Amino acid sequence: MFISNATVEEPPMFVPLHPYVDLDEQEVIEIDSDASPAERVQQAMNCLPLTSENSLDAFKFSCFRRWTIADYSRAYRNGEITPLKIAERFIDAVHESSSRPLSIAFFINYDAEDILRQATESTLRYERGAPISALDGVPIAVKDEIDCSPYPTTGGTKWLHKVRPCTGDACCVARLRSCGAILVGKTNMHELGATPSGINPHYGPPRNPYDPSRISGGSSSGSAAVVCAGLCPAALGVDGGGSVRMPASLSGVVGFKPTFGRIPHSGVLPLNWTVGMVGVLAGTLEDAFIVYAAISGHLPSHEPTTLPPKIHFPLLNSTNPISNIKLAIYGEWFNDCNEEIRLCCSNAVQLLCERYNWKTVEVTIPELEVMRLAHYVTIGSECSTALSSHLENLGRSEFGWDARVVVDIYGAFNSNEYIKAQKLRYRHMQIHNKIFAKADVIVTPTTGMTAYSISKNALKTGELDYVNGGTIIRYQIAGNFLGLPAITVPVGYDKAGLPIGLQFIGKPWSEPTLMHLAFAMQALCITDYRKPKVFYDILGKK
Amino acid sequence: MFISNATVEEPPMFVPLHPYVDLDEQEVIEIDSDASPAERVQQAMNCLPLTSENSLDAFKFSCFRRWTIADYSRAYRNGEITPLKIAERFIDAVHESSSRPLSIAFFINYDAEDILRQATESTLRYERGAPISALDGVPIAVKDEIDCSPYPTTGGTKWLHKVRPCTGDACCVARLRSCGAILVGKTNMHELGATPSGINPHYGPPRNPYDPSRISGGSSSGSAAVVCAGLCPAALGVDGGGSVRMPASLSGVVGFKPTFGRIPHSGVLPLNWTVGMVGVLAGTLEDAFIVYAAISGHLPSHEPTTLPPKIHFPLLNSTNPISNIKLAIYGEWFNDCNEEIRLCCSNAVQLLCERYNWKTVEVTIPELEVMRLAHYVTIGSECSTALSSHLENLGRSEFGWDARVVVDIYGAFNSNEYIKAQKLRYRHMQIHNKIFAKADVIVTPTTGMTAYSISKNALKTGELDYVNGGTIIRYQIAGNFLGLPAITVPVGYDKAGLPIGLQFIGKPWSEPTLMHLAFAMQALCITDYRKPKVFYDILGKK
Repeated sequence: MFISNATVEEPPMFVPLHPYVDLDEQEVIEIDSDASPAERVQQAMNCLPLTSENSLDAFKFSCFRRWTIADYSRAYRNGEITPLKIAERFIDAVHESSSRPLSIAFFINYDAEDILRQATESTLRYERGAPISALDGVPIAVKDEIDCSPYPTTGGTKWLHKVRPCTGDACCVARLRSCGAILVGKTNMHELGATPSGINPHYGPPRNPYDPSRISGGSSSGSAAVVCAGLCPAALGVDGGGSVRMPASLSGVVGFKPTFGRIPHSGVLPLNWTVGMVGVLAGTLEDAFIVYAAISGHLPSHEPTTLPPKIHFPLLNSTNPISNIKLAIYGEWFNDCNEEIRLCCSNAVQLLCERYNWKTVEVTIPELEVMRLAHYVTIGSECSTALSSHLENLGRSEFGWDARVVVDIYGAFNSNEYIKAQKLRYRHMQIHNKIFAKADVIVTPTTGMTAYSISKNALKTGELDYVNGGTIIRYQIAGNFLGLPAITVPVGYDKAGLPIGLQFIGKPWSEPTLMHLAFAMQALCITDYRKPKVFYDILGKK
Repeated sequence: MFISNATVEEPPMFVPLHPYVDLDEQEVIEIDSDASPAERVQQAMNCLPLTSENSLDAFKFSCFRRWTIADYSRAYRNGEITPLKIAERFIDAVHESSSRPLSIAFFINYDAEDILRQATESTLRYERGAPISALDGVPIAVKDEIDCSPYPTTGGTKWLHKVRPCTGDACCVARLRSCGAILVGKTNMHELGATPSGINPHYGPPRNPYDPSRISGGSSSGSAAVVCAGLCPAALGVDGGGSVRMPASLSGVVGFKPTFGRIPHSGVLPLNWTVGMVGVLAGTLEDAFIVYAAISGHLPSHEPTTLPPKIHFPLLNSTNPISNIKLAIYGEWFNDCNEEIRLCCSNAVQLLCERYNWKTVEVTIPELEVMRLAHYVTIGSECSTALSSHLENLGRSEFGWDARVVVDIYGAFNSNEYIKAQKLRYRHMQIHNKIFAKADVIVTPTTGMTAYSISKNALKTGELDYVNGGTIIRYQIAGNFLGLPAITVPVGYDKAGLPIGLQFIGKPWSEPTLMHLAFAMQALCITDYRKPKVFYDILGKK
């Protein structure tokens, strides 16, 4: 095995918590970390391009466009609709979609009463003319790996919530709640986040709204699907091995995983400690940014951090596009995907470079497969440790077949293999540092294939598809194992009409540059958006 | 086993690298981290009490006193003796001690020619009136776990230097060399630092100068013995589980292990990555401080650190003794040692409190045995990983019997046990933080027993004595597992005339306070010093 027998001279890097470096990025403003979540949301809104203050009626789209947080906020403020009405439509839509014939399991838990209560309070705030922030009354869904009252946190299992009761909101959820967001329930996910298919045999499949016979991608499968289907402009996921970015890409939405240590871990199921972090799935980059603004900021005092007292936000409304950007491309790797993805992503990069006069830099990233294995040993060992005290009391029948196999493999590593994986982590960070000395970001397709079909067996037993799984996860590892920020934006569709995503992987703490790039990319591709087959127009419908 | 089956809710703390906190300590000065080692040595000298500028002849001691770095420096500057003369005496003494009847194996390697060359250069500098620092011409020995040209680095083994050639000075050694110190060879140590006895079956025993039939303590056994025997005023050791402090205590000298991350690791054998660090053994606290000043300062850029640009030095020459010090004592633990140690250490603490009006605070430190096991799993797993690529090519006969057993145990842990040990590390750091909220330091005896006799068999095969080993190591673990600074000072002797040490364990980055306390302790005990049976008066003899 690559890891067991490897001779690795480097010291181990156990936690990818990078010293903060002020990157002196272009077109950013400094925000006080101590600003409240609502104040940060306002700051983020100030960084966005001005959109028309007209009512919903005034929007005439040449093609499909998703409603944004700003659209919700404007419609509420203009009195065109109330949060309560949105909540009712939302509940109807979830009810319809979860019933035959669609049978989509977007949520593991949602509570109509709790949603209506939040919506009523929000509606009263707008009636008083005192909404808390642009997120007030906006429906946001939360992956069922993150604590959110009044729900249990299942992690996609049948048992974890019984042995680990949820005692309150996770820190990131509390921040959204403090902004007035309506927390609309706990989205479906792959059991224990174990594979990228996102199929859950216990709670049913969160299908892909672009083609309900296909996966939405995982493990944050439900979060991607609800955003794609128009139920929420944004949702929280957790990304330990691409689990935010992969479903975002396969479902045609934005997926953003900031630098390790940027978002509080408190209240997230500790399925690992050194690779996973909360990320945002959203219909647009703007909305990902707003939610990011709400949940970032200073960390609770018990969480280790290297964060400075100021954080940087990108001025996405700047009239000066950022200049001299260098995009690193490892050609052999970039092209190791299906032909349609390759063409679509190559074209997107070319478009970007032509439009903004940016340059590509050809690089080589050695030992990518070794890094993937080292990440697997790491996430597996940590997950197994996290669950070990529970596992001995559980029958195997409590798990889907796929999770059963995964948990057994996860528990099989010895301490030498774990520590060698950490030595490889150090080595790969050095490799990536050299690339970042030559380029601002690494650009790749987000996945090696588009969403595949759900087999009948998978619905019953779960699925462990190492071939498709490996193809989907191919470009994800550096974001987790090295703690690098990464973002995926939709850039097109294959012939079957399935979404394709492009990924930017940045230097530690380079979120603003990543957002500028993603925003530039989104601006060039936006005319292409297609409407999913399953779509609920809960804001726009008359 | 405590670790395998433990349910530990805490997150893992993989590396005990604490955020730097300015503790606002009493009687300190700020030193620029960028100052050269020689400049830092001068700053340290300025912090010491003024000693008489008289010649060596003028010293009349009522009892035994060790020659200090200041004594060497003064004698060289006054022209009373030259570094070359000292080097010759040193070489004669090592030759005599290593021959029958003494047969003490202080060094694994020393090279008379290299020592004389350094001494000649130093002598020339004094002749030119241009010594580099107070360390110029002062003999300093280096544990054979730390790279030092022109020697191989054996780690106490017969083979490690063959597969890992030494390519130059370790960072800390280079700093001493840049101060003009004469590096007089590589001191003996326990094979791979594996146990506290310090007996080495391959290179012979570094006996205890107070009683050559007994151990000097390990694993830095040679470094403790050379300082005790008067061959050097100071020596470097490495402390991964008390390996500096235990031999210092058993050999009646000062042993100082700073906060994890304070001294560069570069060029130290990577036998572990998260518990070990270079420490100083010296005849007096003043000399430990001077060597500390030389080797500390900023870290090489590839070493992770949280060090600020300034470091603090204690003003040991202050006329204001520091006030309001609170010494935490866990009575049950403190008293878990032989009766003579208990009495001696209790009296020392009482003396200190009476003299300076400091207070003791009674505390409880739970789960000390669990912390010891978690540390063992950690150091074992890391050592096994460090050696794994070599181990498969080595016959067991390459190891002493003790190291053979240890290496096998070290390789037996699984990744869950390793990660659980890190979770326990976090838990114990919280426990210690609570104690440090109530007290400035924790005070303990340094070891649970004084130096025990070397058995004949141990000389041939090595020795794995878990009973005596456990008694010796009892008070060491927090210094390594939690990365806390700790210092031991001699405070007396048992009836057999064997030294007893008292240990102060401090908050992260509280080196100045620790030194103030140790200095106060030393000042009260100094009249008691006894001369070892084996002692070479290489500076004072006529």
